[in-house]
Formats: sequence, C-alpha cells, structure tokens
Amino acid sequence: MNVTFRGRTQPCRTVAFDRARNAVRLVEQRLLPHEFKIVATKNFRETAAAIRDMTVRGAGAIGATAAYGLAQGALAFPARSLPGFRRHVATVYQTLKAARPTAVDPVNAMNDVRAAMRAGKTVAEQQLLALAAAEEFANEDVRHCEDIGRHGGKLIRNGMNILTHCNAGWLAFVDVGSATAPMYAAQVQGKKFHVFCDETRPRSQGATLTAWELAQQKISHQIIADNAAGHLMQRGEIDLVIVGSDRTLGRTGEVANKIGTYTKAVLAKRHGIPFYVAIPLSTIDWNLKSGFDIPIEERHESEVLGAWGAISTPRSALRAPQSVRRAYVRVANPTSGARNPGFDVTPPDLITGIITPAGIFKPQDLWKRRRELGFGG
Amino acid sequence: MNVTFRGRTQPCRTVAFDRARNAVRLVEQRLLPHEFKIVATKNFRETAAAIRDMTVRGAGAIGATAAYGLAQGALAFPARSLPGFRRHVATVYQTLKAARPTAVDPVNAMNDVRAAMRAGKTVAEQQLLALAAAEEFANEDVRHCEDIGRHGGKLIRNGMNILTHCNAGWLAFVDVGSATAPMYAAQVQGKKFHVFCDETRPRSQGATLTAWELAQQKISHQIIADNAAGHLMQRGEIDLVIVGSDRTLGRTGEVANKIGTYTKAVLAKRHGIPFYVAIPLSTIDWNLKSGFDIPIEERHESEVLGAWGAISTPRSALRAPQSVRRAYVRVANPTSGARNPGFDVTPPDLITGIITPAGIFKPQDLWKRRRELGFGG
Repeated sequence: MNVTFRGRTQPCRTVAFDRARNAVRLVEQRLLPHEFKIVATKNFRETAAAIRDMTVRGAGAIGATAAYGLAQGALAFPARSLPGFRRHVATVYQTLKAARPTAVDPVNAMNDVRAAMRAGKTVAEQQLLALAAAEEFANEDVRHCEDIGRHGGKLIRNGMNILTHCNAGWLAFVDVGSATAPMYAAQVQGKKFHVFCDETRPRSQGATLTAWELAQQKISHQIIADNAAGHLMQRGEIDLVIVGSDRTLGRTGEVANKIGTYTKAVLAKRHGIPFYVAIPLSTIDWNLKSGFDIPIEERHESEVLGAWGAISTPRSALRAPQSVRRAYVRVANPTSGARNPGFDVTPPDLITGIITPAGIFKPQDLWKRRRELGFGG
Repeated sequence: MNVTFRGRTQPCRTVAFDRARNAVRLVEQRLLPHEFKIVATKNFRETAAAIRDMTVRGAGAIGATAAYGLAQGALAFPARSLPGFRRHVATVYQTLKAARPTAVDPVNAMNDVRAAMRAGKTVAEQQLLALAAAEEFANEDVRHCEDIGRHGGKLIRNGMNILTHCNAGWLAFVDVGSATAPMYAAQVQGKKFHVFCDETRPRSQGATLTAWELAQQKISHQIIADNAAGHLMQRGEIDLVIVGSDRTLGRTGEVANKIGTYTKAVLAKRHGIPFYVAIPLSTIDWNLKSGFDIPIEERHESEVLGAWGAISTPRSALRAPQSVRRAYVRVANPTSGARNPGFDVTPPDLITGIITPAGIFKPQDLWKRRRELGFGG
C-alpha cells in the first residue's frame, strides 16, 4: 500500500526481496508510527534476527520473510556440491524456524519453498527455484488479501462508519491486510467512509499501526479509547465492524483474536450492527473442537501498567514530532499488579460472517463447506 | 481510609480542616499514584485555587472543600462589623463558586453553610456556626458513603471477584467513596474478595486512583485493560460489578458515568452477572426525562492519543520508583486524530440495582419511591 516518505508517496510492501543485493527488505515495525524505515537484511541470519526481534510481525508477513530468508540463504551458497548445499539449506531452515518457534507460518512457507526446490537438478537450479517459490508465496499472500478485499469491499457502502480493532492490516501481511482489505478495496471503488480505530490497549496496535496505515492511505479515520465503541454504537455512529483473527475454529466457527474483540462483538449484537471477521485460509484451525481449548496467552503485566510512546507534550503531540525519543511511562499505581490476557474467543452467534479469499461464510457453515475452503479434499 | 506514608499507616480523609492553622487539608490528587502528599491551603483563595487546578476532584470532595473554604474565609475576617463581614463572606462565596463554575456540589454545600450562619447574632457566632456547618457537611458526606457501604456490603460474599470501573472511591468524596464503600464495608466484616480495576482509558483513573486506594487499604486487586473484562466474564472470573455515577436520572433510571460503563453493563447482562451502581442521593437528577438529553462532554483528543505516567522502564515499573518524573508520551500515530466522549449512559434494563444511602433500589423504581429518597416531600 502507499507510504509517504520524505515528501514522496509510493507503494510499499511489508516484505520484499532485493535480488541485486540478495537482501530481504522489511518495514521496521518497531519504530512505527513515530518513524518509517526500511531495513535490508544482508544474510539469512539477519533475516532470522528480524523475525525474532519483531522488526517484522504478523502471520503472513513472517511467513513470507521466512520464505525469502530460505531463498536468500540458498542463493548465498558459493559451491556446486549438492550434498553440501542440502546441509547448508537445512541449517538455514532451522535458523529461521527457531526465530519464532511457536509460529506455524514460517514453517509452512519454508516447506513450500523446499518442496519446489526438489525439482532442480543442480545447485544453481535449486537456488533459482527457491527464489521463485518464495516470490510465489509472497504474491499468493497478496492475492489472497486482495480476494478478501474483493468480497468484503461489497459490504462497505458510501457514508458508512466502520469500527476495527487491533491491526489486521498490510503491516501484518505482505500487503493489503485482512480486516483492512475491504476498506482498501472500497477506497479504490471511490466509496467514502470513515473508520474508528480502537486504540487496542494494552499494546495499542490500533492507535499505532492501523491508524498509521489508514493515514498513509489517506482514509478518513479517528482513534477511540476501547471504552468508547459502545457509546458510539448506542448513538448510531457505527454501521459495520470488521476485525481480523489469529485463529478461527473450522469446526465451531469460534474466532480467537486480540483481547477486546469479544467485547466489540457483544456490543455489535446488542445494536444489530453487522460484525465481520476477515481471515486468510491459513488461520483456520480444522482440528480443535472447542474455543475453550484455545490457550490464552497471559502476557507481561508491564503492558497494562504503562505505555510506550514518544516523549512529548499534549500540545506538541498533535503535530508530528521532529525528533523522536521513545520511552515507557508507568501509568498505574506502583504497588499494584495486573492481569493481561492477550486474546479472547468470540462465539459464532455474534459473528455475521467470515470474509475469506474464497467468499463470505457464516461461521457455523465453515465445516460443512470446508471443501470450498480447500480442506478435506 | 488508610494511607501508608513514610512507613506509617494512618487514617486519612480526602478533605479535612485544621482549626489551629485555619487551613483546609487536601490530598494532592494530581501527584497520585506516584507520590502521596497533603497540602494545606492557607486562605480561601488558595482553597479556591485547589478546586480550580484539580488538586481536589470528585463531587463530594469539592463540595466539602468549598464548605470548609467558606468557613475558612469567614474565620479569617478580623473585625466585628456584621455588614463588612457579610460583604466579605459574599466575596469568599463567589471566589469559591467561580473555581469550578459547572459543578453543583460546591454551591449546594456553601448554601448549607450560609443558611446555618444566619442563626448567629455576632460575627464570632456566625464564624463558629460556619465551621460547625462545614464540619457537618463533611461528616454527612462520610455517613452517606458509610450507609452505601452498609447496604452494598451485603452483596459481597466470601471469595467473590468484583469488577469496578474508573474511580468512585474515597478520593472522590470526603472518605469511604461510593462504588468502593461496599468493598471497604465487606473488608471490615472480614470477607475475602478480589477486585479487578478497569484501567479506564483514556484518563486511567482505575489504574491510578482506584488501584492506589485498594493497595493502601490492602484489598486484593489487579488492574486489567478495559478490553479484558469481557474475556474474564466469559471464563467465569467476575461475580459482581459495582460502579459509581456522575448523574442518575430519577425519572428513568438511566445512569451517566465514565465512558466504558455502558460496555461493562452490556457484558454483565450477557453473562448474568449482577451490575450495581453506587451513588449518593445528591447525584440523582429528578428533572431530565431522557438519557439522550444528558450532554456528553467531548474531551481533548490528546487524552486518547497518549498517556501520562512516570518515566520508567517496564522492569523498574514493577517497583515503586525512587524519584518520580512525570511525562506525557504520544502513543498514537502522529498524523491521526481521536474522538473522546467522556461519559456514556447505561439504560435501566442493564442495571441490577442502585445502591444509595437509603437502601438498594431497582433503577425503574426510583421515581415511584422518590419520597424514600428524600425527593418530593
């Protein structure tokens, strides 16, 4: 999507590959929204470090980063011995996998690349096949998000006010995003609408990443405290809710997503406001039988007890700061602790539809229509 | 309630009077939770300044401060001329009233004091009557909160987990508080329970003031992001919700309170969790006919776009800092704006009961039982 940097507006992907330099180019997400910077990792170890240290985050984005990282590592092999090459690629694979051991996307992406490489008879052929497969993985991630936009964009009508929670935007994918995809598609179609971004405490991804994306894309938006959505719904100021999902249960239609998603779904139901979840197919879990079996990560209490930001004054905060000094402030009482569940589970009766690259589905219908979603052969 | 300061635990009121020094003693609330300090205003102009600059806040607390301030001003009159005294008292009254022009409590409190003074035949008599009336106003505020505690404390059973939102604690009154009163009463009765304090963005009064109060009182508690209450309810971890109210409509049972209260009420209803509102009688509005007529203040967007706190690190934030430097950090994207409604309105169908000093009432019954609540003679 678009980024305006040093006065120039240009398209940008979260993850891209620089063939000339054999480098993976990543948006440095830890500096956003206060600074925009592209980093280029010079070798697969640097690429693994970028995954580990959260320079890049989001399921689609780290999948593509790992795929490119594997190709990058393969391309750097200097000799022609196939057994040596295979040992080298195995090392690259393990290094990238270990960078985010709980994530499934890097492993799936790298398995795709390795499968494609097998058709090559020489080291040189396998190197080229690895890069082609990594590029295909990244492009497919973009196409799937565009498909989500094509289906979901139809839900957006002129003049609508849309609520979104957390960041399921292009920064979490290679481009376009999931929950944001319908908005970007509707913008291309010339529709006018306004987006309320839930701040999304405690990590504030709505106020930082989603708001940054929408501002770059010149989509009308405002940030609200997580407490404010209910009041705006009550006053008729929200027409549609679109969120992403970390894991959607194919058997039950339950949706695990950032903490607070469930609350917005309960509020939307009370006010008769459509509540949609936009997801790539890779996040559907066809095995789990109950949302209560989804482990809810309890994160560090410092996230709740304070906030990260750019040191500022309330007045100067309304302008982009010239030079940014990031700091953590302790907001809460120093002698109190916190609970910090990172995710919650929304039941299917609160969800109007699941927007996928293959169309929009009732959450209760995912299982019986699983073949349309590419599962069960 | 209790305050532990420099190693000593002692009882403390938010507002008190020092006869020997003719000074109003106030908890300096702008420094909380990072520093505890009592300020003593030397004359009525300093007392008015303390109301104006938010050293003291909360309906009951500013009412008592104004009452004491009027007595303080009266006591400082050095002559015996009644007409001169009356002119002086009128100046004191106007100065204190102008300190918070939209608040009704200082005016009501000072009218009580002036009415009591009229029985005095000399300046000296009127001075003593003013102080006695101010003391009575403050003591009555405490008694009413204790009555709320007596009724509401019965709702708390051993082992309960209680959710509260914002700060309706003793810092907002002379002592004891409204939403906190049942907790303090239950503690005296030896009951064990745990309190979840909603952070209450954007101003974080739950994380700062309520958590500080509960920590001082040694009541088990944890702060949660406003997004987390729904998840905790879903998992059966909340048994009871108690909040305060800025204005309760006597005719309809609607409750205006800090933004986010409505959301918690909707969630509580879905989970069958009792939702109570604790209020002093002075906050019942017997005139307004609809909650939609309550003006909802739109506050400055900087509150949503950032946070105030003590500069710290996530690690050191878990200990009380040695020296406190407060700062504002801009959290949000620098080129995005915010909506910031300060309050919302909860309809009576979501409210289990209104806890008043006169007992617990169904919100729908306030009007027909208004005589029990001291309205309509």
